[in-house]
Amino acid sequence: MAEFCVEAGDIRQAVSRIAGVARRTPVLTSRLLNEATGVEAYVKAEIFQPGGAFKIRGATNFLYSIPESERARGVVAFSSGNHAQAVAIAAHRLGMKATLVMPLDAPRSKLEATRAQGATIVQYDRHRESRAAIVERISAETGAHTVPPFDHPWIIAGQGTCALELLEDVPELDALVTPLGGGGLLSGCAVIAKEVAPQIRLFGVEPETGNDHWISRRTGKRVEIPPPDTIADGLRTTRPGAHTFPIVQQLVEDVLLVSDAEILAAMRFLLSRMKILVEPSGAVGVAALLAGKLPLGLHRVGVVLTGGNVDLEFLGHLT
Amino acid sequence: MAEFCVEAGDIRQAVSRIAGVARRTPVLTSRLLNEATGVEAYVKAEIFQPGGAFKIRGATNFLYSIPESERARGVVAFSSGNHAQAVAIAAHRLGMKATLVMPLDAPRSKLEATRAQGATIVQYDRHRESRAAIVERISAETGAHTVPPFDHPWIIAGQGTCALELLEDVPELDALVTPLGGGGLLSGCAVIAKEVAPQIRLFGVEPETGNDHWISRRTGKRVEIPPPDTIADGLRTTRPGAHTFPIVQQLVEDVLLVSDAEILAAMRFLLSRMKILVEPSGAVGVAALLAGKLPLGLHRVGVVLTGGNVDLEFLGHLT
Repeated sequence: MAEFCVEAGDIRQAVSRIAGVARRTPVLTSRLLNEATGVEAYVKAEIFQPGGAFKIRGATNFLYSIPESERARGVVAFSSGNHAQAVAIAAHRLGMKATLVMPLDAPRSKLEATRAQGATIVQYDRHRESRAAIVERISAETGAHTVPPFDHPWIIAGQGTCALELLEDVPELDALVTPLGGGGLLSGCAVIAKEVAPQIRLFGVEPETGNDHWISRRTGKRVEIPPPDTIADGLRTTRPGAHTFPIVQQLVEDVLLVSDAEILAAMRFLLSRMKILVEPSGAVGVAALLAGKLPLGLHRVGVVLTGGNVDLEFLGHLT
Repeated sequence: MAEFCVEAGDIRQAVSRIAGVARRTPVLTSRLLNEATGVEAYVKAEIFQPGGAFKIRGATNFLYSIPESERARGVVAFSSGNHAQAVAIAAHRLGMKATLVMPLDAPRSKLEATRAQGATIVQYDRHRESRAAIVERISAETGAHTVPPFDHPWIIAGQGTCALELLEDVPELDALVTPLGGGGLLSGCAVIAKEVAPQIRLFGVEPETGNDHWISRRTGKRVEIPPPDTIADGLRTTRPGAHTFPIVQQLVEDVLLVSDAEILAAMRFLLSRMKILVEPSGAVGVAALLAGKLPLGLHRVGVVLTGGNVDLEFLGHLT
């Protein structure tokens, strides 16, 4: 295997670091889902994580990796929501100060949940301001460590623990499907999955409009796209990460695209048939399965449901 | 212990009978729920059962208990929905014919799911017709076995497996709280729980308007109430069962009442904070906990979430 910024050993080390904060989430199965998709689907329910999303894995691993002598400076992060909440929870557990830079149009539930952890929130206009510049200014003023949402070896290693748990629970998967935003989850999962189960086939799923990885893999380099308009607010990244892209490029078989309508149909299925609330970004894997976007011939397919943070007002879109 | 129609041994026998059809459902925990209720709550998620409710336990145990030579005659049952669906699924698995008598105003999701199992549905007017009479007629005409919704030892024994699993997973519960309709679930759970954990304190929860057990336990006999108006459509029973009442009367510490508003608040909490869809009848246990209806001093409390069958149109009530 090529040398990446993260190795399987980093992911195994992250397991014990995150154990007190992140949960080992259940793997759900459903006869109705199997009938609708034609495969045996094994659904890793990250919706049950503290903060309602897998992001707690990477954030916790990152914060625990900061040397103790530097923790008093606190942390700062930008995020469309789930990463912010994860950083806030992990910081709260470690007794660290956290400042979160979040867009003005972030879901209200995510803002409230982040604030409830005692974090300071700074809001900005997604279309006019540079969140990176705001984070840099705060970091410069306070000395806080910047916690990037995906493009860092500590984050990638933390997210990879998700696939490790799934493969421990269901060893003989043919394929693993995850949502693809910046690539932190998919690259971490890819590194460990290929070590544990070398034959496994890996797929990332993007919203049709947020297709930065889809384009980038076809052109062979990291392409920047305009801020995409999609209900999958957690997958609005505009460019693959410098650390994540080489891993995705080399280990992942294909990037699949789903429409907002396909995402809504998947959310409806998950809620009415499987009784679980999954946010748009979290439902793209099931959307790809239900819409027949995966290659034929797969039997046992792992799918990560990355998060469940949906404003209840949004439920009107599902009726 | 007094002699009841069901003994702990019947429940243990039911475990292997239902194993191929019912699931061993997960026990969920939530820091947010613990903070909101002041107890350590252990939530038995029967929403993940085939048919979306615990009813599959009793129905499967009943159908497997019919002698093989009599199975060709099929089964008939009445139900507000979840029992019907459970009977349909169990019959389908055993290759038996099933006829279900369901009210005209049963949730559409329940009617559709029942029909999808190949069962015949006969609808009736809940306010004008006697479902019992319709079932009797069908049974007389076809020779089908009647599967009662709750008041039968085979049903009660099947439902009791729910508490047995929960106590295997979480042995040191102070208390167990279940919804209380006809009393099939609560009585089966009570018999096995008192054998496995004699110190456990047992509570049933009814909707305020559907308070037939609450009244009956205070008058010491089975009182009939008018058909109640409540969003908890699975708890609209009008009289405790002849088999279930003595068990509930003797083993259960108290019957608690919750309002429709408290039920809706619990459904909202379960959906937005715990990411799971629970129907009104299934949420009454959590509603009682959130509304402070349980005695003080409990530490580890088991709660059964009995079902998750909600028409997506109903979600408008939660926003």
